[in-house]
Amino acid sequence: MNKHLIAHYLCRITAAGSLLFLVPVIICVIYGEWEDAKIFLIVAAGTALLSAPAALKKPKDNDVFAREGLMVVALLWVLYPVAGAMPFYLSGQIPSFVDAVFESVSGFTTTGSTILTDIESLSHGMLFWRSFTHWVGGMGVLVLAIAVLPGNKAAMHFMRAECAGPQVGKIVPKGKNSARYLYIIYSVLTLVFFFLLMLGGMPWFDSICHAMGTAGTGGFGVKNAGIAYYNSPYIEYVLTIGMAMFGVNFSIYYLILAGHMKNALKNAELRMYIIIMAAATLLIAVGNRNIYSNLEENFRYAVFQVSSIMTSTGFATADYSQWPEFSQTVLLILMFIGACAGSTGGGLKVQRIIIMFRSVKKFVRQTLSPKCVYVLKGEDKSMDTSTVHGVQTYFILYIGLMLLSLLLISVDNADFATSFSSVVTCINNIGPGLNRVGPVENFSFYSDFAKIVLSVDMLFGRLECLPVIIMLSPSVWRNKF
Amino acid sequence: MNKHLIAHYLCRITAAGSLLFLVPVIICVIYGEWEDAKIFLIVAAGTALLSAPAALKKPKDNDVFAREGLMVVALLWVLYPVAGAMPFYLSGQIPSFVDAVFESVSGFTTTGSTILTDIESLSHGMLFWRSFTHWVGGMGVLVLAIAVLPGNKAAMHFMRAECAGPQVGKIVPKGKNSARYLYIIYSVLTLVFFFLLMLGGMPWFDSICHAMGTAGTGGFGVKNAGIAYYNSPYIEYVLTIGMAMFGVNFSIYYLILAGHMKNALKNAELRMYIIIMAAATLLIAVGNRNIYSNLEENFRYAVFQVSSIMTSTGFATADYSQWPEFSQTVLLILMFIGACAGSTGGGLKVQRIIIMFRSVKKFVRQTLSPKCVYVLKGEDKSMDTSTVHGVQTYFILYIGLMLLSLLLISVDNADFATSFSSVVTCINNIGPGLNRVGPVENFSFYSDFAKIVLSVDMLFGRLECLPVIIMLSPSVWRNKF
Repeated sequence: MNKHLIAHYLCRITAAGSLLFLVPVIICVIYGEWEDAKIFLIVAAGTALLSAPAALKKPKDNDVFAREGLMVVALLWVLYPVAGAMPFYLSGQIPSFVDAVFESVSGFTTTGSTILTDIESLSHGMLFWRSFTHWVGGMGVLVLAIAVLPGNKAAMHFMRAECAGPQVGKIVPKGKNSARYLYIIYSVLTLVFFFLLMLGGMPWFDSICHAMGTAGTGGFGVKNAGIAYYNSPYIEYVLTIGMAMFGVNFSIYYLILAGHMKNALKNAELRMYIIIMAAATLLIAVGNRNIYSNLEENFRYAVFQVSSIMTSTGFATADYSQWPEFSQTVLLILMFIGACAGSTGGGLKVQRIIIMFRSVKKFVRQTLSPKCVYVLKGEDKSMDTSTVHGVQTYFILYIGLMLLSLLLISVDNADFATSFSSVVTCINNIGPGLNRVGPVENFSFYSDFAKIVLSVDMLFGRLECLPVIIMLSPSVWRNKF
Repeated sequence: MNKHLIAHYLCRITAAGSLLFLVPVIICVIYGEWEDAKIFLIVAAGTALLSAPAALKKPKDNDVFAREGLMVVALLWVLYPVAGAMPFYLSGQIPSFVDAVFESVSGFTTTGSTILTDIESLSHGMLFWRSFTHWVGGMGVLVLAIAVLPGNKAAMHFMRAECAGPQVGKIVPKGKNSARYLYIIYSVLTLVFFFLLMLGGMPWFDSICHAMGTAGTGGFGVKNAGIAYYNSPYIEYVLTIGMAMFGVNFSIYYLILAGHMKNALKNAELRMYIIIMAAATLLIAVGNRNIYSNLEENFRYAVFQVSSIMTSTGFATADYSQWPEFSQTVLLILMFIGACAGSTGGGLKVQRIIIMFRSVKKFVRQTLSPKCVYVLKGEDKSMDTSTVHGVQTYFILYIGLMLLSLLLISVDNADFATSFSSVVTCINNIGPGLNRVGPVENFSFYSDFAKIVLSVDMLFGRLECLPVIIMLSPSVWRNKF
């Protein structure tokens, strides 16, 4: 483990990232929130100054291997949320430091779980910052750095570690260009949804925040009542489509732009994603038939919540904890499935579900007819054993961490549905859970210890475990590998 | 798929199994329950007559392969519980047929979940039959048949399919002898605990039933208040030790009897089993420190419940749904872990947990240092890839079925903790769950549909999925393999 190299890359990206704190300053200026503007400037300057020395000192050995890449990503994802918590904490708008970090981790990991009991009490600058962390965290802090920083040989190692899904790679031969294309598509789509929301009569500030929350599949809003506040079917449909679109693998959009429409639509994951969404909407609409008498209304609430939960955004138009258990269970299962690999969404990812399903099928067949040789079919080529093994291992770790977290937060003595759904919603980066953490509730009642456990879960889910495990394993630090 | 062969073996074992219905007749005679005696005799005769034709007709092709073995086991485990439900149903003591089947499946799979609201209303014959199904189901219906029936070339295929755990094989070179040794150890241990319970002042009838319930790690009792009825610390400690002992791999006892004490105690699974039990007891005792002021009492309740849940027995001395969430979560995690492979207990089995843990460790190491070759260490030899892959696949199926069952029973609109713990307790063959299916509650409120789903879960858990999947997969029936 090359510690100098790690420190160098880490500080280089952090130094560049200090520029992010300048963006909300614009909002502060517009609304005349001078105190907040000052705080953002101080945090920006502090971050830049602290990381400058190591960023400027070039290391001798410049080779980045997988484990250095993973470590940089892991540490960056600890440093960033802590820096990102500073504005909340220093402004006094979130007085507890642990609460501020929880909110910031929830923002960057695009979870959207909040400890705030009154969202509207925050200043515009802070509300913008909350949503902005979603936007930055959605595509990845590092991917952004790769896209804007000069020449980076290590680009692919970083991108692989930060992008979600079992098989995400470059969409064009050079990692740097891949990162740029990704961010261009991402930005343009965000802008489109910003305008669509404005068209529906949503104020411009709210539109920016919700567009960023949708793009990052985050879920932070600006109103206590959530999306229900706007009371506009048009806005609900726009957000439904928006969330669903950001849950799709971004290479699909690249393929479409490059003129390979046919190839894009042949994608097995995309098809399965659409099928699951449609099926879940139908099931929930049937489950809720006695709650919403109007057919259109029933469909609208169902499809909105399905899109919101499956893409791990977490916006809510209805208090689904009042729905029948069946509808809630459908949502719970969607939480596990998640969006497509290579999107900004969380969860296990549809791609992993497909791989697991196929490998199980293969195993059963092989047990029955040991003499035959079955080959797993992947997206285009045969799926290699190491990918399958990686997916299965990930799944084991994911369930294991879930049970461990459940045990740790059960010390707070919340009821089972609350504890269980808190863990599920955090590890899958969704936002709301059931009961006391339902869509109209928040995470404020948890102890600091539970908040830290849930923050680790959010990081684990966003980074898909490997970086987190490596950071937490002592033997890596002792150079034992 | 050789259908004649399957029918032959199936009916041969069912015909032999009809003798099982004669055992409770003795109890009926002792208590003068003539009506019940008649019913058991009728069911015995009916089973024997119905299966005689196919049992006597020898098939031409006599080769049993893995898939035929699995299919025989699967069908047998459907036929037996249905036959076993007949006495309950025909006597009118369980008026609903689905309820009677649920109770019978719960008995044979050694789950111990009940739909009875008043256990003490049952006759002695029926109470005995309930507990007797635990005893027979614990070690396996087929294993019993192999042990007692003349010459069976297919013995190993059947045993592998019915015995629990990833790596269970013969303990002596011949499958038939293995089955005999297993049943001798099993019977002697059961007798020992029968006498130990008698010594504690438990009536002889209750002692027989509880000894069989302990041996099969089942959990059916004879009193509405459960073990708490006897109000005897001695009995509680005897049962604690009894349940823990039947959760151990039976080959360990064989090794000890054969004089290989040292080898037996070196067993990694046994050590981990004891460590987990001790740790869980400690955690629960700490969690319950404010409920039980007396240190001995606190320890006794904790260790009893740990032993009961981890071995998947399900006896209860306390209403643990009144315990703090932390203690309940420890129990919930124990439900997943389960007992040792090759025991009568359920759950994932400690052995699988060890294999999964090691494979995850290996995967993480290999990702960090792709050039090194790591070899998984098994019990004695290197663990082969197919075992690891089998365990991982099993885990995926297990979680998948759990989520699917949760969705299906959520139609009944029970609260989340109830639905979730119902599925967990049934699939792991434990018995009680949380909330409305807690240790002082029962499963009577569920709809017939939910009861059938939970029955399938019990069978899946007991047979460890493969036989159940094969039975339910249409392509097997269409001879497509």
